[in-house]
Amino acid sequence: MSNFQVRTDLALEARESISEADSELRGVRVEEYYREKEDVKVTKVMIDTKNAAKAMGKPVGIYVTMEAPAMVEPDEDYHREISECLAEELLELLPDADAEQSVLVVGLGNREVTADSLGPQTVDNLCITRHIIREYGKAAYNCERMNQVSALEPGVMARTGMETAEIVKGVVEETAPDVLIVIDALAARSIKRLNRTIQITNTGIQPGSGVGNHRNALTVESLGVPVIAVGIPTVVDAATIVSDALEKLLEEEKEVDVVKYVGRQQMNFSELNNMYMTGKDIDAVIKRVSFTVSEGINIAMEMRMD
Amino acid sequence: MSNFQVRTDLALEARESISEADSELRGVRVEEYYREKEDVKVTKVMIDTKNAAKAMGKPVGIYVTMEAPAMVEPDEDYHREISECLAEELLELLPDADAEQSVLVVGLGNREVTADSLGPQTVDNLCITRHIIREYGKAAYNCERMNQVSALEPGVMARTGMETAEIVKGVVEETAPDVLIVIDALAARSIKRLNRTIQITNTGIQPGSGVGNHRNALTVESLGVPVIAVGIPTVVDAATIVSDALEKLLEEEKEVDVVKYVGRQQMNFSELNNMYMTGKDIDAVIKRVSFTVSEGINIAMEMRMD
Amino acid sequence: MSNFQVRTDLALEARESISEADSELRGVRVEEYYREKEDVKVTKVMIDTKNAAKAMGKPVGIYVTMEAPAMVEPDEDYHREISECLAEELLELLPDADAEQSVLVVGLGNREVTADSLGPQTVDNLCITRHIIREYGKAAYNCERMNQVSALEPGVMARTGMETAEIVKGVVEETAPDVLIVIDALAARSIKRLNRTIQITNTGIQPGSGVGNHRNALTVESLGVPVIAVGIPTVVDAATIVSDALEKLLEEEKEVDVVKYVGRQQMNFSELNNMYMTGKDIDAVIKRVSFTVSEGINIAMEMRMD
Amino acid sequence: MSNFQVRTDLALEARESISEADSELRGVRVEEYYREKEDVKVTKVMIDTKNAAKAMGKPVGIYVTMEAPAMVEPDEDYHREISECLAEELLELLPDADAEQSVLVVGLGNREVTADSLGPQTVDNLCITRHIIREYGKAAYNCERMNQVSALEPGVMARTGMETAEIVKGVVEETAPDVLIVIDALAARSIKRLNRTIQITNTGIQPGSGVGNHRNALTVESLGVPVIAVGIPTVVDAATIVSDALEKLLEEEKEVDVVKYVGRQQMNFSELNNMYMTGKDIDAVIKRVSFTVSEGINIAMEMRMD
Repeated sequence: MSNFQVRTDLALEARESISEADSELRGVRVEEYYREKEDVKVTKVMIDTKNAAKAMGKPVGIYVTMEAPAMVEPDEDYHREISECLAEELLELLPDADAEQSVLVVGLGNREVTADSLGPQTVDNLCITRHIIREYGKAAYNCERMNQVSALEPGVMARTGMETAEIVKGVVEETAPDVLIVIDALAARSIKRLNRTIQITNTGIQPGSGVGNHRNALTVESLGVPVIAVGIPTVVDAATIVSDALEKLLEEEKEVDVVKYVGRQQMNFSELNNMYMTGKDIDAVIKRVSFTVSEGINIAMEMRMD
Repeated sequence: MSNFQVRTDLALEARESISEADSELRGVRVEEYYREKEDVKVTKVMIDTKNAAKAMGKPVGIYVTMEAPAMVEPDEDYHREISECLAEELLELLPDADAEQSVLVVGLGNREVTADSLGPQTVDNLCITRHIIREYGKAAYNCERMNQVSALEPGVMARTGMETAEIVKGVVEETAPDVLIVIDALAARSIKRLNRTIQITNTGIQPGSGVGNHRNALTVESLGVPVIAVGIPTVVDAATIVSDALEKLLEEEKEVDVVKYVGRQQMNFSELNNMYMTGKDIDAVIKRVSFTVSEGINIAMEMRMD
Repeated sequence: MSNFQVRTDLALEARESISEADSELRGVRVEEYYREKEDVKVTKVMIDTKNAAKAMGKPVGIYVTMEAPAMVEPDEDYHREISECLAEELLELLPDADAEQSVLVVGLGNREVTADSLGPQTVDNLCITRHIIREYGKAAYNCERMNQVSALEPGVMARTGMETAEIVKGVVEETAPDVLIVIDALAARSIKRLNRTIQITNTGIQPGSGVGNHRNALTVESLGVPVIAVGIPTVVDAATIVSDALEKLLEEEKEVDVVKYVGRQQMNFSELNNMYMTGKDIDAVIKRVSFTVSEGINIAMEMRMD
Repeated sequence: MSNFQVRTDLALEARESISEADSELRGVRVEEYYREKEDVKVTKVMIDTKNAAKAMGKPVGIYVTMEAPAMVEPDEDYHREISECLAEELLELLPDADAEQSVLVVGLGNREVTADSLGPQTVDNLCITRHIIREYGKAAYNCERMNQVSALEPGVMARTGMETAEIVKGVVEETAPDVLIVIDALAARSIKRLNRTIQITNTGIQPGSGVGNHRNALTVESLGVPVIAVGIPTVVDAATIVSDALEKLLEEEKEVDVVKYVGRQQMNFSELNNMYMTGKDIDAVIKRVSFTVSEGINIAMEMRMD
């Protein structure tokens, strides 16, 4: 209906924007369930075919979305119940989750831009074990099975002069982890999803996604190891929000010549291209949700002995 | 024409939004000049009467706006020519600029939210002299006349539990400076003014202005000492940008019932109230412009011996 | 025996350095107990008379020292049991602990110098309630009684040009809290006490103590409200550690002419005066212990309804 | 004379600690000159043979030391003359300095530990050009010849779980720079050299050097590209300073049985092993000297057109 390029990193929103007929598209399956105790709604979008991938604008794979309204609010336990929920969903997507593995966690984004600092801030609170286990063995942690966790904050191209993908690829080749978990701040289409949704996918990171657009692909194809991506939408694209407001208006006022109007406004939109919209309390929110994510990863990485 | 509350902290924009007839409003004088060497356009808006103040939505006083397009771009000297320009304009507004004075510079805003960190980052690069002069005398700086410069970063209410005005008032009463210079990030109406405009005013800070809305009044009335405010617009209010886009559309399409539409959208706008729009490279921009401002103040504070 | 000025901010160490005969000094009472569950040894030194204060080099008052060896080690609950222990001891020293109070927490020290950043980092994790309660009443927290907590990070003189005491006094006079809790990094004499000891005292802060020496007095006499100081030793003075090593040697080698030697070395020591010694992992340690302290204060401030 | 392991990262100090006879050691050449305008004393120690390397405890190569007493003091131009001096010395050690090159600058150390943050803070102020030149060509900078500068802050093992050398090696292999410039904070033996000495060497980084001991070798042998190391001593090892004080005493008092004493104290020293000594104003010092170093590199990297 619209010519505007609507941008969302959430598979959930990509699916919503497909019209009803299309949503029964072959090749896309959707499962939903509600975790009452934690007040978390989980939606799994499984894109099974290339056709479906094309229609959705997202690659073939599994996209788990946890909607957790409580996440934006302060909590003295940092929403441990949501962290536990995240740990479970993460382990389901992790290949070979029962085996001891070497896991490299990559915190994408720019520490100096608050809305883009989810990745770096998550990495700050991880329990890093690789160097200890390599030096002292698992005995150091007094348990039989133990994942080796390492972490990398590659920074952004404006400060490194290198693509994030170049840095990650180099480190992956040198340290040979079994799997990557990549954390990134995302762009949502709807303000209502900001900071209260976690998306976990086994498709890795696609070029052009994320708040900063600072990446090439980080995928099993490009890196040679499976890549699980964990993201939380922290911004809305400025162009998206304006186009959404306009579209709503245009739908209501039938007399308006949509196509003519869109053409006239195209140029105006270009100045919005490098802008995003975020909340005024984004510092407190990122501090809190990054802790929820890091604890989720910490819980998932501690392997149970049974 | 529109019922939307359009928000701008810039007197320049407030004046532009007054229709032509009104702009010859008695009580508002405007002077403009262009500094060719520095490529800076200076506009002085002088609001002389209460009536004019009411029409403009800004208190009686002088508002100097420096438009410096170069400011957003990297420069190995950190735009020293713009700093010198700022120093001159600042000294013109400073009462008793020829006398030795004790000047307290207050860096408003939230260091943890990039777009709101202009004040704190400016304060980081100031040349602080009050404690040295009080301990060792002016001899320490080898000059005859010397201002005593002190600086305060009061933080934001969410982290202190106190109004910024309470903290500043207490410190002013205890340390008795002759004048305050208050630095803050501002909201502009137009994306084109972001990060390339400096506003200097002798009216101090009004409640509800600034990126974070984190302040009560900081004025000569509330504090008992003159307050010069220096600000740079770093964000555009989300509600403003959407309303501007709509208004433009509505103006063009006469058939649309503006009033009806505005009424219907009111509710949607409320969710934009605590959001702002900013650029993706805001970290590099703030680092740069805060240095330009701090150098401007440093230059102004070094008193010439003649 | 020695002419060296030995510096310690810990009453516990001040007492140890008094020779045996003196330790039965009238006017000093000592109580010790061991909290087995938390593995915390608590020592209360009560200095009751001016004579005793002079001998100890510490003002009249109560000094509680919690020795908690576990505190330096990582813990997924951030040593909540030590926080609870701290909350109890804090409430014992707090005047009127049963009444609703307005409490200003002051984080002393320099955020930019890791070993001196205990105060600022503690303040970062406090639960700030004053502004909420003043705006919405206690109902906002759904409980009958509630302390109003505010927080201040005054910064250091090199960056503000003002004495910490000036800033704190101004803010106290303007916001009228009932009591102050002041957090600071301390200097210990013994490396063994670093980062695993918490001292709580009702004497406030004395000039010349702390890592940065950045303060005048913050006491009930200077501010007009009671001041509880909470500190953790994070550094050893360089001069102290060298003098301790020498003294030990000199005690063992009787032939050495101590007095002559000390005289000769005096000058060499002066270059150590602005130096301190700290551990290489001080960043991780401060992050951890500041969280333990902030949680202790948070627990103490939540008033129980009975 | 002493059994203590005296630690210094400065070749200048290593040479001083060799007794007079040894200092005419074959295989070590020393050149000195004084740059009057900049008040910088330059000493070049050239270690030419393996024997000499063994005696000095430093590998074969060239070590340039710039002693610049002014560097610790504030300066409104950030000591640009010292930066220019550094640029010249750097270019002399850089292989193929006349050719266009791709240069990767690595900022070693821990941003969170002030005394160890020279590398990360230097990297913050570099002029990064690689991504621009690769995207837009040299035309973007309007000059004929231009180095491609990229930068990496690998972080420390406690936070990454990886050796710095692993990360650097991976990135070098992936991005194929022609040469590395590695920045690190160093340990000096003498307090008098702290923060006013720059060492530049073409030997790269050796295991066990630096403030944090956080590295394996970063050398042409380990990485396959030449490595220039630039360092400034910011700390003195705690064990070194105590042993120096003792040694001085022991030399003077011949009656003391040195060997016996040293044996007895060995154990005590072990608790000093992970400690270092630094100045109380280390934050201001590092901010200043890191800027001097980054500007030196920026100047060296801008290739002259002749």
